[in-house]
Amino acid sequence: MKVSNYLETEATLELPGVLKREVINASDGAPNSCMRVFELEPGSSTPSHSHAWEHQVYVLSGNGVVEGLAGEREISRDSVVFVVPEEHHCFKNTSKETLRFICVIPLQ
Amino acid sequence: MKVSNYLETEATLELPGVLKREVINASDGAPNSCMRVFELEPGSSTPSHSHAWEHQVYVLSGNGVVEGLAGEREISRDSVVFVVPEEHHCFKNTSKETLRFICVIPLQ
Repeated sequence: MKVSNYLETEATLELPGVLKREVINASDGAPNSCMRVFELEPGSSTPSHSHAWEHQVYVLSGNGVVEGLAGEREISRDSVVFVVPEEHHCFKNTSKETLRFICVIPLQ
Repeated sequence: MKVSNYLETEATLELPGVLKREVINASDGAPNSCMRVFELEPGSSTPSHSHAWEHQVYVLSGNGVVEGLAGEREISRDSVVFVVPEEHHCFKNTSKETLRFICVIPLQ
């Protein structure tokens, strides 16, 4: 069993204004999926892209939008987002506070 | 893409004082894992048990303990817990507020 605070995991700067922490991954013995925590600074966004794997997202704090095939949807604390495989998607922080969310993906 | 608030998902009473919501599951098209949100009322706990699959847990609010092979560890908001396959584990709310956490498991 691993017990930690998410801040104990080293952060990597994925893009300007976008921090990522892999809080549970294969190095912990995870056999199936990886749990990451993202922090987007105000005005920042993830690239609009698609890939073969899905995203399971839970918003921890902040406000923003997620863009998918059906357009933009607002997200805030306690929002749940499921991005299906191959769907174009993009997360944007449209607020003045950090947008923080969990994103679980299958191990590649 | 599915976007919702976790409260929009119907809750089931798993045990006295233990609510479960499957906020992302196979019915949403999830191919690999299931995201659940648990709410434990003060004094409540999940049973001490083990199983072949792992847990990826993120604590959203409240305080409590998780019991594993190495004994009890305190958990609170932003705690991350990885329970390895076959490990005995038990979550307990030791506070006076609801203990709320995400728990991701592989699809069975």
